[in-house]
Amino acid sequence: MNFQVRVFVTPKPSILDPQGKAVANSLHSLGYDEVVEARLGKLIELRLGGADREAVSARVDEMCRRLLANQIIEDYRFEIEEARS
Amino acid sequence: MNFQVRVFVTPKPSILDPQGKAVANSLHSLGYDEVVEARLGKLIELRLGGADREAVSARVDEMCRRLLANQIIEDYRFEIEEARS
Repeated sequence: MNFQVRVFVTPKPSILDPQGKAVANSLHSLGYDEVVEARLGKLIELRLGGADREAVSARVDEMCRRLLANQIIEDYRFEIEEARS
Repeated sequence: MNFQVRVFVTPKPSILDPQGKAVANSLHSLGYDEVVEARLGKLIELRLGGADREAVSARVDEMCRRLLANQIIEDYRFEIEEARS
């Protein structure tokens, strides 16, 4: 079966996020003063095969821990969807 | 009222995504051969004030068009949530 997985990798709340700060500053210069904070993360969309949702979840969790997220400074979570094709 | 908005910016399907290709290659080297494709996007989390959901939606859409997404090569969408605080 084919699955579509969306992995969200975000800086941990305690970690400084200079990119997010830069985005917030740019938004303020454009007049969006209502923005209190911006934080920048990554969205990784994966298309992959697998036997079922549980098997895919275990594999993707491993991918996150081994490659996609740096757990010292980042949190991750993901959503699995059966692909249409 | 305070809102938490999550903006997802992804490369358009027709656009080459070398970063995503690099991620897919790395996953393959680690033995995750079931991965067919990886695409890399941005996740921007905003905390901001606003009168209501409609007003926030209009403002964030404008922010995406003016700063957060490059519509020539990227698509964007966002989710709005009322903040707990």
